[in-house]
Amino acid sequence: MTGLASLSGFPELLPAQRNAELSVVNSLVRTFELHGFANIETRAVEPMERLLSKGDIDKEVYLLRRLQAGEDAADAGVGLHYDLTVPLARYVLDNAGRLEFPFRRYQIQKAWRGERPQEGRYREFTQADIDIIGKNELPFHHDVEVAKVMAAALAELPLPGLRMQVNSRKLVEGFYHGLGSDASPVAVRRIVDRLDKLPRATIYEQLLATGLSEKQADLCLALTQIRTADTSFVDRVRDLGVKDDLLETGLEELTAIIESCRGLSTDRFTMMADLRIARGLDYYTGTVFEAVMEGFESLGSVCSGGRYDALAVDGATTYPGVGLCFGVSRALVPLFGRGLLTSTRSVPSVVLVALATEESRADSDAVADALRHRGIPTEVAATALRYGKQIRYAQRRGIPFVWFPGDESSADSVKDIRSGEQVDADATAWSPPVEDLHAQVVTKDSSE
Amino acid sequence: MTGLASLSGFPELLPAQRNAELSVVNSLVRTFELHGFANIETRAVEPMERLLSKGDIDKEVYLLRRLQAGEDAADAGVGLHYDLTVPLARYVLDNAGRLEFPFRRYQIQKAWRGERPQEGRYREFTQADIDIIGKNELPFHHDVEVAKVMAAALAELPLPGLRMQVNSRKLVEGFYHGLGSDASPVAVRRIVDRLDKLPRATIYEQLLATGLSEKQADLCLALTQIRTADTSFVDRVRDLGVKDDLLETGLEELTAIIESCRGLSTDRFTMMADLRIARGLDYYTGTVFEAVMEGFESLGSVCSGGRYDALAVDGATTYPGVGLCFGVSRALVPLFGRGLLTSTRSVPSVVLVALATEESRADSDAVADALRHRGIPTEVAATALRYGKQIRYAQRRGIPFVWFPGDESSADSVKDIRSGEQVDADATAWSPPVEDLHAQVVTKDSSE
Repeated sequence: MTGLASLSGFPELLPAQRNAELSVVNSLVRTFELHGFANIETRAVEPMERLLSKGDIDKEVYLLRRLQAGEDAADAGVGLHYDLTVPLARYVLDNAGRLEFPFRRYQIQKAWRGERPQEGRYREFTQADIDIIGKNELPFHHDVEVAKVMAAALAELPLPGLRMQVNSRKLVEGFYHGLGSDASPVAVRRIVDRLDKLPRATIYEQLLATGLSEKQADLCLALTQIRTADTSFVDRVRDLGVKDDLLETGLEELTAIIESCRGLSTDRFTMMADLRIARGLDYYTGTVFEAVMEGFESLGSVCSGGRYDALAVDGATTYPGVGLCFGVSRALVPLFGRGLLTSTRSVPSVVLVALATEESRADSDAVADALRHRGIPTEVAATALRYGKQIRYAQRRGIPFVWFPGDESSADSVKDIRSGEQVDADATAWSPPVEDLHAQVVTKDSSE
Repeated sequence: MTGLASLSGFPELLPAQRNAELSVVNSLVRTFELHGFANIETRAVEPMERLLSKGDIDKEVYLLRRLQAGEDAADAGVGLHYDLTVPLARYVLDNAGRLEFPFRRYQIQKAWRGERPQEGRYREFTQADIDIIGKNELPFHHDVEVAKVMAAALAELPLPGLRMQVNSRKLVEGFYHGLGSDASPVAVRRIVDRLDKLPRATIYEQLLATGLSEKQADLCLALTQIRTADTSFVDRVRDLGVKDDLLETGLEELTAIIESCRGLSTDRFTMMADLRIARGLDYYTGTVFEAVMEGFESLGSVCSGGRYDALAVDGATTYPGVGLCFGVSRALVPLFGRGLLTSTRSVPSVVLVALATEESRADSDAVADALRHRGIPTEVAATALRYGKQIRYAQRRGIPFVWFPGDESSADSVKDIRSGEQVDADATAWSPPVEDLHAQVVTKDSSE
């Protein structure tokens, strides 16, 4: 890792690490596009009033100011976006007449938050979002759709095991409502949401303070204990004996998601119903998602999202949405920092063409061009040092093949410098093994 | 185009436009990587003292401030980078011990400048840079290399014709020195560099004021008239009768570049020696490049760069470099704005799977998954409207194929909604024509 010393919270990667990050990003792009999600990129800045409208993030926003600009400049009062949801909402409003709904978009960009830097939390970070936005309506099957798309995307990544936990606010709030207490379901949910942060006894006290009876508070805590990889959570909820229409809807919706995603579980990716998950932010109105990386639970959630019935509102038109956000930097930077993720080489080149003498550079260039013409990343030795030094030049970069141009008396040859094997070769016909063509991602288990 | 109204100078693209931009970026990436250039990404911010060290950009830098942060915060005194060269120099110094030199890198990122917005000049813009950085030395053949790589990259792009003009500061300053005047070659170069902005007569007056004779000033202006697609510029310079060792080196170097790149010229890309090009910035020390887009000369240079003998200095170590920067936004955003560049569709999907009834969604999903499994981007109809409406849904997005799942009595079929042709098909075997698989870039000539 690099650069951390010079500016805390703004991680930068070495080329081999960046190659691994790019490989992750390209894999996400491939899955998102296979499912019909279109890419957009929004500007890095938004008006401050839009950034601050949520009210709880004001200390973390970076405000921009042009040196010597007046207060009335057009770009006065703008700040860097801290997520990709606020910009999406604004983009949808700006372009509502030019977009087709439901609008499926993915967005992979940096965002900035001035929070205290720690492992997994950075001041500059990359996230990858998918959302489906409707116009006035967005059927529930789109909740299933984003879950399946993100599950398919995450299952492809070279990461430690990911555990995606799903819940439904309808289920939870319906359950609280069905208790028959006067306590506000939203107030109860907010208290239960702090289970990770406060002692259980404190939560219990707070629940009683809302007006719940001891039995009702017990039921609330019992609900948070339910966590199943299949749909058996339904019976366990029913066993608690609470009845409510909204609860029924929530049970149905969560069942649909768990059933639809069952086929996507692998040894690296699992999805489960977890009735404790609530997501602190208030705008979720149905399904909520939260994923942790096994062995890295202290990073918190590396992927999260859910359904929000009003992403944006414009006069009589409402834009509901459902989406998921994968924290690229939050998941990857700690792996780079611990040496658990890198690439086989620091350059794209699979071949280094050696240089007999500086005068023969045109010959080596011609070999390189012939290889590139067939899609083989190639570089030419920088200087005509003796061949042993040119081979070490390739070794230091992780380039697996060194090409030796022939002369009147000998053919060209190519050497695999890992095995030492050298064979005669023709630059218009030879290809490296497919697995060597591009730098490969290298992972190490944290237990190794 | 979108968003411009809401924040001037921060252009945003509609999905079909963004697809065209991505296609350009991916084409650049492919060429850069084929030539062994590794990607890096640097943080968006740099310390202000580093950003301001050039002295002429201070009004344009965006300073960052965290709301409510103290002046002594670690991220106080940072601003957004206005190019990718300042961050590269800092990255090289930060990681000198971990990089292999010569270090070939490409970088495609946004940068920010608070200048007055106009066509081709934005406050937020994307650029694509390639540079080769040496440690203490960097042989001239790398100047030829970056020229060839960028020429190969630009020749692939779906843009109006590009004209790359090359010169050598050694040639020009050697020529001025060879005049035998006491006038400083650097001072003369700076005056001549303003030929685009000031009347010729004014330039002539200023040249005389440096101490040049009328004959010498005539020669300076005669040099700026020389522009050739081949190496005949050498004879035309010699005809002016000036002799100088540095001039000779410059002539040799420029000859090497023009000769090496001759094979890369197409009807869309030409490279020529143009002895008027100087590039205002002072840090160039040898080759200088500047490309304009034909028919869009008013945008100024869309690609520029050159050789700088001291990109960065650390104690006794100097890092010379040579590089080129392509202004992605500067070249593309005006084309989007004029409707000259877009894509065949606004979504990645090549197939829309129709939906007979909401109850049969699982069947349509299964078809979609079978197609995706073979790399075919597919989406499923959002609602089970009658088929005519589902076909119009596809039309509005530019999706060329609609798939109709069969039932007990009929096979699946797929319809090309452009031609109306419909054939029976099997989702485990059918593929669209290769040219339809991904959205294609659509260009229109500005004269059309």
